[in-house]
Amino acid sequence: MELNQIVTSIQSKQEAIQSVYFVGCGGSKADLYPGFYFLRSNAKKLIVGHYTANEFNYDTPAAVGENSIVITCSLGGNTPETVKATSLAKSLGAHVIAVTHEPESPLTKDADYVVTHGFFESYSAKMDKMTKILTLAVEILNAFEGYDYYEQFMDGVEKIYGAIDEATKLLVPQAKAFGEAYKDAPVIYVMSSGATTEVAYSFSICLLLEMQWVNSGSFSDGEFFHGHSKSWKKTSHSCS
Amino acid sequence: MELNQIVTSIQSKQEAIQSVYFVGCGGSKADLYPGFYFLRSNAKKLIVGHYTANEFNYDTPAAVGENSIVITCSLGGNTPETVKATSLAKSLGAHVIAVTHEPESPLTKDADYVVTHGFFESYSAKMDKMTKILTLAVEILNAFEGYDYYEQFMDGVEKIYGAIDEATKLLVPQAKAFGEAYKDAPVIYVMSSGATTEVAYSFSICLLLEMQWVNSGSFSDGEFFHGHSKSWKKTSHSCS
Repeated sequence: MELNQIVTSIQSKQEAIQSVYFVGCGGSKADLYPGFYFLRSNAKKLIVGHYTANEFNYDTPAAVGENSIVITCSLGGNTPETVKATSLAKSLGAHVIAVTHEPESPLTKDADYVVTHGFFESYSAKMDKMTKILTLAVEILNAFEGYDYYEQFMDGVEKIYGAIDEATKLLVPQAKAFGEAYKDAPVIYVMSSGATTEVAYSFSICLLLEMQWVNSGSFSDGEFFHGHSKSWKKTSHSCS
Repeated sequence: MELNQIVTSIQSKQEAIQSVYFVGCGGSKADLYPGFYFLRSNAKKLIVGHYTANEFNYDTPAAVGENSIVITCSLGGNTPETVKATSLAKSLGAHVIAVTHEPESPLTKDADYVVTHGFFESYSAKMDKMTKILTLAVEILNAFEGYDYYEQFMDGVEKIYGAIDEATKLLVPQAKAFGEAYKDAPVIYVMSSGATTEVAYSFSICLLLEMQWVNSGSFSDGEFFHGHSKSWKKTSHSCS
C-alpha cells in the first residue's frame, strides 16, 4: 500500500485524527525525528509526540486513543520495547503504522499498516526509512490540515535518492580522510539542529559508539555558544 | 503574582488555550523539561512543545498565537536567543511567562508575567526553577483540562524543598567519593529517563563539560540495551 493510501485509509475510518506519535529506540528513534519535527513545526491542530518506546509503554500519553496515529519503527522489527509499543497502541484503539526493513517481523503483527523500507542496497536506501517516515508526516498533514507545499515536497522527494547517491560519491574521499585524521581522537562530539538534530545523535550512538567504539556525545548546535563547548578545544574534536 | 494567579489571569483573557511551549537554552532548556514532560503525558487536548530558543525563533511552530502560552527561561535573563524568543512570542499574541533569577533582566521586558526563582541560597533553591516550572505546568493542566491529582501534587511540592536539603546532606559524602574516584575518567556518560531525562543532559553539559572540563555525553536509559553502551566498558565510566 502506498503511503498516501495508508493515510486515506485511516481518514476513511477516522476523520477526527487529533494526535500523531512517533515511537522507537536508538537509530530508529532518530530516524523518526524529521517526520516528528516537520509535523511539530507545521501542524496547527495536531498533538505530536516523539517517544523512546518504553516511555511510551510505561507512561503512555493520556491522548492516545482512536483519534491517534502511532508510527513505530524498528529496522529488523525485533526491538522488544517497540514491538510492545505497537501492540499497546493497537489495544488503545490507535491507527498503527509499523515501519521496518522486515515485513514479516514481530513489529508488524499488531500493526494496521506496514511500511517496508530499503537499507542494505545503497547509501540512499539507508535513508529510505527516514524519507518514508517524513513523507508519511507530510501525507498526514496534507490529509488532516492541508499543506501548501505538498506538490513541491513530492517533487523533491522523488529526486532525493539520486541526490544522496551522487553526494556520497563526492563525499566518501572526505569521510575517509576525516576517519584517518581522527581515528585516535579521545572523543568526537557531533552537532546538528533543526530536522536533522537526531542525525547527530544517531551518528554519535550508532556509528561512533556502537560500531567504532569511539567515545562520543551529541548536542543541538543551539547549545554551541552556551558554555560547555569551550572545554572541547582542549581534548577533543567535533564535527557538524 | 502566585503561579496559580498567573494561570487564572491568562484564563480570564483567553479561555481557549490550545498550545503550551517551553523555550530556553542549555541548563535552562533542561530545567523546562519536567514541566514539558508532565503536560505531554497528561494533557488530552493541549499541543505541547519543548524548544531550543533559536529553533523556536527561526522555525516558529505554526500553532503559536493568541491561543498559546509560551514559557521562556534563562537563569540570568540575558541569553540572547531566549530574550528574542520572548519578544517573538509576545509579537505573535501568545501569553508569555518569563522564568528567571533576575526579575529586572532583558528576558522580562516583553513578558506578560515574570516568575522569579531562587538559585544560590541552597541546594533546594537550585531546584526552584525546575519546581516552579513543573508547578506552572500542573496549574495549566488543572485550569484548562482539570487534573485529578492536583491537591496531592500541591501537598507534595511544599515538601520537596526540605526533602532536597535533607537528601543533599546524606548524598554529599557519596558525591565527593565519586568525584575522587573518577576525577581522571576520560569520559563520563550520564543516563536518565522519564521526567528527569534532561537532568542527565544538564549534568553532562553544565556540570561536567562546562564546569569541570570533563568529557561527557548523555542518553535516555531507554537506549541502554541498544548497542552503543557495550563500548563503554572499555574506556569510560557511567552514572545514572
